[in-house]
Amino acid sequence: MIIVMKMKASSDDIDAVINRLHNGGWQTHVSRGEERTIIGVIGDERKLDQGAMSRMGGVDRVVPILRPFKLASRDFQAEDSKIEVNGHVFGGEKVIMMAGPCSVESMEQVMETAIAIREAGAHLLRGGAFKPRTSPYSFQGMGEEGLKILAAAREETGLPIVSEIMATDQIDLMCKYVDVLQIGTRNMQNYALLNAVGKTNKPILLKRGMMSTIEELLMSAEYIMSNGNHKVILCERGIRTFEKYTRNTLDINAVPVLKELTHLPVVVDPSHATGRWTLVKATSRASVAAGADGLIIEVHPNPAEATSDGEQSLKPKRFAELMVEVRRVAEAIGRTI
Amino acid sequence: MIIVMKMKASSDDIDAVINRLHNGGWQTHVSRGEERTIIGVIGDERKLDQGAMSRMGGVDRVVPILRPFKLASRDFQAEDSKIEVNGHVFGGEKVIMMAGPCSVESMEQVMETAIAIREAGAHLLRGGAFKPRTSPYSFQGMGEEGLKILAAAREETGLPIVSEIMATDQIDLMCKYVDVLQIGTRNMQNYALLNAVGKTNKPILLKRGMMSTIEELLMSAEYIMSNGNHKVILCERGIRTFEKYTRNTLDINAVPVLKELTHLPVVVDPSHATGRWTLVKATSRASVAAGADGLIIEVHPNPAEATSDGEQSLKPKRFAELMVEVRRVAEAIGRTI
Amino acid sequence: MIIVMKMKASSDDIDAVINRLHNGGWQTHVSRGEERTIIGVIGDERKLDQGAMSRMGGVDRVVPILRPFKLASRDFQAEDSKIEVNGHVFGGEKVIMMAGPCSVESMEQVMETAIAIREAGAHLLRGGAFKPRTSPYSFQGMGEEGLKILAAAREETGLPIVSEIMATDQIDLMCKYVDVLQIGTRNMQNYALLNAVGKTNKPILLKRGMMSTIEELLMSAEYIMSNGNHKVILCERGIRTFEKYTRNTLDINAVPVLKELTHLPVVVDPSHATGRWTLVKATSRASVAAGADGLIIEVHPNPAEATSDGEQSLKPKRFAELMVEVRRVAEAIGRTI
Amino acid sequence: MIIVMKMKASSDDIDAVINRLHNGGWQTHVSRGEERTIIGVIGDERKLDQGAMSRMGGVDRVVPILRPFKLASRDFQAEDSKIEVNGHVFGGEKVIMMAGPCSVESMEQVMETAIAIREAGAHLLRGGAFKPRTSPYSFQGMGEEGLKILAAAREETGLPIVSEIMATDQIDLMCKYVDVLQIGTRNMQNYALLNAVGKTNKPILLKRGMMSTIEELLMSAEYIMSNGNHKVILCERGIRTFEKYTRNTLDINAVPVLKELTHLPVVVDPSHATGRWTLVKATSRASVAAGADGLIIEVHPNPAEATSDGEQSLKPKRFAELMVEVRRVAEAIGRTI
Repeated sequence: MIIVMKMKASSDDIDAVINRLHNGGWQTHVSRGEERTIIGVIGDERKLDQGAMSRMGGVDRVVPILRPFKLASRDFQAEDSKIEVNGHVFGGEKVIMMAGPCSVESMEQVMETAIAIREAGAHLLRGGAFKPRTSPYSFQGMGEEGLKILAAAREETGLPIVSEIMATDQIDLMCKYVDVLQIGTRNMQNYALLNAVGKTNKPILLKRGMMSTIEELLMSAEYIMSNGNHKVILCERGIRTFEKYTRNTLDINAVPVLKELTHLPVVVDPSHATGRWTLVKATSRASVAAGADGLIIEVHPNPAEATSDGEQSLKPKRFAELMVEVRRVAEAIGRTI
Repeated sequence: MIIVMKMKASSDDIDAVINRLHNGGWQTHVSRGEERTIIGVIGDERKLDQGAMSRMGGVDRVVPILRPFKLASRDFQAEDSKIEVNGHVFGGEKVIMMAGPCSVESMEQVMETAIAIREAGAHLLRGGAFKPRTSPYSFQGMGEEGLKILAAAREETGLPIVSEIMATDQIDLMCKYVDVLQIGTRNMQNYALLNAVGKTNKPILLKRGMMSTIEELLMSAEYIMSNGNHKVILCERGIRTFEKYTRNTLDINAVPVLKELTHLPVVVDPSHATGRWTLVKATSRASVAAGADGLIIEVHPNPAEATSDGEQSLKPKRFAELMVEVRRVAEAIGRTI
Repeated sequence: MIIVMKMKASSDDIDAVINRLHNGGWQTHVSRGEERTIIGVIGDERKLDQGAMSRMGGVDRVVPILRPFKLASRDFQAEDSKIEVNGHVFGGEKVIMMAGPCSVESMEQVMETAIAIREAGAHLLRGGAFKPRTSPYSFQGMGEEGLKILAAAREETGLPIVSEIMATDQIDLMCKYVDVLQIGTRNMQNYALLNAVGKTNKPILLKRGMMSTIEELLMSAEYIMSNGNHKVILCERGIRTFEKYTRNTLDINAVPVLKELTHLPVVVDPSHATGRWTLVKATSRASVAAGADGLIIEVHPNPAEATSDGEQSLKPKRFAELMVEVRRVAEAIGRTI
Repeated sequence: MIIVMKMKASSDDIDAVINRLHNGGWQTHVSRGEERTIIGVIGDERKLDQGAMSRMGGVDRVVPILRPFKLASRDFQAEDSKIEVNGHVFGGEKVIMMAGPCSVESMEQVMETAIAIREAGAHLLRGGAFKPRTSPYSFQGMGEEGLKILAAAREETGLPIVSEIMATDQIDLMCKYVDVLQIGTRNMQNYALLNAVGKTNKPILLKRGMMSTIEELLMSAEYIMSNGNHKVILCERGIRTFEKYTRNTLDINAVPVLKELTHLPVVVDPSHATGRWTLVKATSRASVAAGADGLIIEVHPNPAEATSDGEQSLKPKRFAELMVEVRRVAEAIGRTI
């Protein structure tokens, strides 16, 4: 951490800062420049309160040097984490394909979708039993009934299941039926929920908050990991910007940025990141080309009848086409699907 | 709702849309324009699935006409809601002043602050016992111990208490000690929590998500209200933008916009909305001038020692000065403090 | 400037950075921390290329310490700049009121507006003769004809004129008719234009780019000032955010921030910052309460017939009401109008 | 265009709107719904003033139906525009690669770069002779001297030249030396400049404003095209968002969106869109996979010595590696380089 003093900081101000640091067990390097004095802090800055320091007399700014995340960092673990789900490994050479409906609506819908995506080559089945909806008047999901349908589809197709958990009191229920617990974009900073899933041993698909920075995503992963569960899969799903034509803006930069900063696997959700099914194929190819370890895609046998997010769902036939195109791109960069 | 067909939509496409609407119980008005056909839907559009309609063959866009919130709307209730907390009325002529530390740290800290702000004329005491922190390594709050300290300060000063609830399993505990339950910015779309507080009879201070639209804020209020609790106080606390000099951007427009759209009281949090204590006085004056029904302000006896958000906390003396200035502005627009 | 080296930077990397700095005439302070080495640069960092340094081997990040603007800075000039326009002083105790139509449309329109706003107490007349429009098919302004109309209104009412200049080849024409040259939001970083107006001796009303940071606004002021013209009036006019209900988001924080960082006067344009006339009164009061040195407001005798921005224009009668309210707020904070 | 009346709009309000439309030559379809009346407008809405209509008594909102751009639209021209520059065709099967330094600094620098990128397979040479810089104290480019260096490099290598034009008075000079005129991000809405280049017959590389919507980009293309020059190449170069880790956020969605909306070629600038050279390779692959018709990439023989944007420049060797990877991705989606 570096503490930049104001131009008019007095010697007393400077001494007070230095004394406080020394009393707290840190060492300092003081540079008296032409216009200002700057104080370098030596020691573990994560334990130092940035706010408190910046509020001291004569202090202009405090500049952190270390990244605030630790367990999730490449500095902590250099090699890629590999997270296995029923034989499919996130973070390895293979690009993992997850697909399925936004909401579970019926046994027929899920079964038809599951069979179709497995035939097209998908590895996991996604589907929401509990749905976070902006409006209290919208369909809120089938609940446990929906989980049973997903489990039946797994029984039939062998595809493991990813599904969203919305509240801490759903933990036992979700763990009973589901292979990967998804934390949705609105819950990325629901710390009670992060702590709770951090105490399970299920892989967690952690979606980036639509309003969260890359660093905050990693801090939320850190919450889960600091509870003991290191099996975190990060998901870029589009951020909110001023652009109104698409539902969100897919932050494609986040893929190589995350691969630099962390050892955790990174997947992309092109369905939510665009909000329009006509854009899903192009952005899926782009995500794999950027280095994503997997994709999660909405597929619905009859999107026009979907209870949620029909605009962004692909029909099974289009998903099969997408698989062909994405596979070619994966191979072009030395990966498989 | 209006359904805009594509230029090349066939008559079959148009008929399919009309039939689906008629089968669902809606009436239609069809306008065949020079370039396109548009279909007006007559009936309660809140029950109609916008996504499903927009996914039908030949449909270009679906344009909702009604606002999606109902109970929170001025159309539903024209006159201002008045929410009383121990004799102080949110939504009336008086501007309600809430103040106190970000985090409860000790009996001395809270007691000193509470006495000072009461003397300066504040009406409620704020303070966090459970703290949502970006980092799992930061101080997470004193928990019930903190609530007891707040209650002791209320006992001493008579100031009712506002404090943040972070999880559904804190409901009973919080209701035991606290007068107004605060939903924080990261939990604005934590629907499990909204449903839970909607079942209590405590007033709720609902903070706008830092990247949530005004409409989404009202939809979250609608969640609480649709559970039976109509005592919702909305709080503008700054949104996330590209500007980096301040921690957030105070959306001052939101104050008159909300007063137009809803009958619920609207307060502003200038401390979080700026992130710098030097900006709090000016933006407090501005918020009251814009029509806010109250302010919530961070005050700490020794901001440099605060465990969180010290940069944005005022010393009690500065808060007293702020009260003087804000009172003058309130009087200039025909209100009191 | 502070140069933070990577954890694994070699001694050679560190030496190369130090040598380059010494060769360039800077001195250094080197702090070897537990995890990293940091290098403090002593000397005028504005002359040092941040990009080049950050690209050197072993460098993790480069952190600038000084603000990049100089002439516009409070460090350069502590007391407020006062800019006089026909006896009206921007940056003094008086809040300066500018009003008038978005576009000049006819002699009658301008004359009627000018007389009405003068009666209500406005100090300057605004009106566009050259209009930057998103669409090439929209009305582009009356050109010199419009300037003549503005001049006639000044003749009649004594109100000096603010009008937008869009291109360098309009300089002579504009200087002939206009008292204050306005640089519009889309031209805030049109450096050719900034350099050109910097060579005139007219006061410049510099609008913040809808996509520009506060620092960039000050850098654009610096362009004008470094050409010799120090008479720059800064204008906050709303920024672009994710919020869609209003046309822009009025960044009210920018008012006290600018008053801290610069000695230049700061005005606000509540008409563009909201895009809705129903919000103009509340945000005008807020802007003055926040410390703005002036307001610029759209007034049109018949907004429904306006060729541009009718939604955000006030009728003269409403402007007169606004003047009354704004004056009360100004007085409440010890200023006049 | 659809005009939505307020719930409490009177019959007089409704009649006034209808009369105004009929008087202007439009026809109407009026739908009286349960809660509101809506009025559909029949006729060319581009000629109708949306603002004026929305300001009429009793009007709640005005919803445009047609897109505001015409010449740039796929509706106007269904097949892809092909724009040829010295035998290289933008908008065809081949992905066009442009590369070179941000700023022209010397004959050696440009010549070395040009030879290296041609060897690696690039098709055009980019380089700035006039540089828009945030600070007036930064290097502003070599001017005509720089253009001569670029021309000499073209002479030597056969690579046509792309270079930025910053002001209308540079038109003749630029046209003398340059093959493609670039409009930079800060000038995307400099309408005087758009009109001026629209009167030349040079291909225009139009960069998206860093905070401009896709629709505004197309409106700026429309400005150029409506002046007679239809040779417009659109360039996505990253937008400004709340994310701070990268310089900009590459809006990868914009690529397929633009390919849907317009017949004009679309290229991507991954150097500016990320601001970090370590991210350029991954995002280049992604851009091609998303369907971009070309890339423009910063290459510098010695990035650490670059006068601008060194952090985002690739060394020639890394550019050659990038070409290999990007070619494989292009072939995977049925294109060539």
